[in-house]
Amino acid sequence: MSRHVQAEIITIGDEILIGQIVDTNSAWMAVELNKSGFELIQITSVHDDEQKIIEALDRAFTHADVVLITGGIGPTKDDITKQSLCKYFDTRLVFNEATLQNILELFAERNIQINELTKAQAMVPEKALIIQNKQGTAPVTWFEKDGKVAVSMPGVPYEMKYVMSGEIIPRLQSHFKTPAVLHKTVQVYGYPESVLALKIAAWENALPDFLHLAYLPNYGIIRLRLSGVANDALMLDFALNQQLSSLKEILGNAIIACEDIPLEQLTGNILTAQSKTLATAESCTGGNIAHRLTLFPGASAYFKGSVVAYDNAVKTSLLRVEKSVLETQGAVSKEVVEQMADGVRHLLRTDLAVAVSGIAGPSGGTKEKPAGSVWIAACSKDTMISREFHFGTFREQNIQRATQAALVMLKEVLETTP
Amino acid sequence: MSRHVQAEIITIGDEILIGQIVDTNSAWMAVELNKSGFELIQITSVHDDEQKIIEALDRAFTHADVVLITGGIGPTKDDITKQSLCKYFDTRLVFNEATLQNILELFAERNIQINELTKAQAMVPEKALIIQNKQGTAPVTWFEKDGKVAVSMPGVPYEMKYVMSGEIIPRLQSHFKTPAVLHKTVQVYGYPESVLALKIAAWENALPDFLHLAYLPNYGIIRLRLSGVANDALMLDFALNQQLSSLKEILGNAIIACEDIPLEQLTGNILTAQSKTLATAESCTGGNIAHRLTLFPGASAYFKGSVVAYDNAVKTSLLRVEKSVLETQGAVSKEVVEQMADGVRHLLRTDLAVAVSGIAGPSGGTKEKPAGSVWIAACSKDTMISREFHFGTFREQNIQRATQAALVMLKEVLETTP
Repeated sequence: MSRHVQAEIITIGDEILIGQIVDTNSAWMAVELNKSGFELIQITSVHDDEQKIIEALDRAFTHADVVLITGGIGPTKDDITKQSLCKYFDTRLVFNEATLQNILELFAERNIQINELTKAQAMVPEKALIIQNKQGTAPVTWFEKDGKVAVSMPGVPYEMKYVMSGEIIPRLQSHFKTPAVLHKTVQVYGYPESVLALKIAAWENALPDFLHLAYLPNYGIIRLRLSGVANDALMLDFALNQQLSSLKEILGNAIIACEDIPLEQLTGNILTAQSKTLATAESCTGGNIAHRLTLFPGASAYFKGSVVAYDNAVKTSLLRVEKSVLETQGAVSKEVVEQMADGVRHLLRTDLAVAVSGIAGPSGGTKEKPAGSVWIAACSKDTMISREFHFGTFREQNIQRATQAALVMLKEVLETTP
Repeated sequence: MSRHVQAEIITIGDEILIGQIVDTNSAWMAVELNKSGFELIQITSVHDDEQKIIEALDRAFTHADVVLITGGIGPTKDDITKQSLCKYFDTRLVFNEATLQNILELFAERNIQINELTKAQAMVPEKALIIQNKQGTAPVTWFEKDGKVAVSMPGVPYEMKYVMSGEIIPRLQSHFKTPAVLHKTVQVYGYPESVLALKIAAWENALPDFLHLAYLPNYGIIRLRLSGVANDALMLDFALNQQLSSLKEILGNAIIACEDIPLEQLTGNILTAQSKTLATAESCTGGNIAHRLTLFPGASAYFKGSVVAYDNAVKTSLLRVEKSVLETQGAVSKEVVEQMADGVRHLLRTDLAVAVSGIAGPSGGTKEKPAGSVWIAACSKDTMISREFHFGTFREQNIQRATQAALVMLKEVLETTP
């Protein structure tokens, strides 16, 4: 088996270390690197500080073949990545005409006047290969040293994604020979992690050495990811599929998906394929189910809309929940959530609907219905499923877990509806 | 000035390096560390691999006083942090009765049977101080070495937050002497970063050495964060306030907030204080405005609900958008979005409403209305503001930028409504 090409990410910026932004770039880059046959072995975040940047580069180069550097190349004074790279690679900044042209085009499109700070973006390290960034003013700089590669790119997520997909990954693949890396994921619902681990222990222990299993819990769903590295992609694929068939026999219906895609996308795909439409009625999830469904292009094929009935008056007036039921059973009850589902399905004239009512917390609970109590109903013309959940007192976690559970129930209705 | 106590975070887990989860823990921990007088100088993510874990620990201890380690202490086979720490600190695993008791209580509450994998969670490093984790089965382990501290804690976000706030931060503060660290943030709307930087260049260049400015762009809003470190918190606070008053004179109305809180929370606070109610009508934002508003406890004080009118039929039937207007002007138009805002305000009987209609992209645009074209209206009984935006072709970015813009316009209406 050829040695894996190893990559490291260095993110530069005070904003990450002070916690004012979450580093979402690295996870995205990790997925792209893996898919392309690179193994990401470390992510390091350091301040906008020359010494720290140089130390991180030095350390990364002792382990990795590829060092991907994001951030710190904006027009403002706090950004010093470019200067630090010049020092590390013993070079200097020179004017680059193509970069200035790119900036001028970009600003003309957006109708913005170019200023001195922006013009300075066209000063680039002399020893680097310069790759234009059509989405922003800072170009990508590509350095080579003893066969290893360092690439500096913008930290702004959409700029980074654009240059990674379009320029950097293809160039890295042609620069290095990369083995086949395959991952297959199944999504399991309804098991605590330790119970699942015991249930599949014998299978897991018998896995061959070149395959590796990881447990990825995500708000009630556990993704089991089986990975392998080999020179022969076909053989590897065969071995992975064989192991997964055994796993499916053990877990049966607890496996709710055999693809590693978000549940909302999976459900959306089934709805689209069956030409069915959907509406949601949301109380404690506050629009999150609708939001997650519509994050993906193509949602308009099946998603008609939602009534976020945060206030009880909206439940009765728009969704036709009976006042007497609301008073006797309470807003967080089987009856109310079923009426909400039924109500929104009729109101928006859809084939399916899902409704959620609960106490998101952290406060607002009672002894009978503590924070985290949630009722969910999913229905079609002929089917109605409703269930009670107790998720705990963490607000965001409750909203996400209720959203997941609602999507799982929706999928159940889709599977039982002819 | 006393030396800053320096901290590093090591996150352990294949799931981060393979990109299947985003590391949200580190940002949260960074904020808590900063507030408590620690400077976070590096975040390092490594695989569940003994050698890599030990290397990361070794390197971290050469720079930092505190090393915070998250992840890799679950009950499953892939988790090896505990074993690696034993090797690094030259100790062994021993049975800990208090940990077993904690696990038994936890499982009794949740009505789950304890199994062998879970029992093994009660084996802990002999040399460490053991701190119970009331939210999960893996305890916190605290090691000391030459006055420096390493703490291993769970990677599950709500467990990590619980033990950090309740146990680790207080113990770290009593173990180290920490100087005052203050941050003040203003939020600026309507400026590209480079234009803003030039506008405040003279002010920024005249800042004293112990203050530091950072630009944090976030979907159309730029947060300017001024930070300082000093032994005397009162003097530092005075210096920060003095600089911020000068900044406010330069930027005037472009400053939309002087607190570092999300815009939805800021708007929610004003609505609550003024006892006003709100509804949203959302097309391309798909419920995201409602979702973001309801992520914060207390939203029920002002938020009545939302109509997500993804389908045009919902715009006409529920929101009373005129069919003829929809046909002649198109769904993405001033007239439609104003009728949506007005419609939802009447339907849900609220004081204010905000409505969004646009083309989220990446496809679906036309020559006149390319992807990223968005109309937003915000209104009260007496005021109606509506504006057109062009955000680009990135779907998620459009949804987030439209949400921000809607919240800014809502705040404008709140400020002009008596």
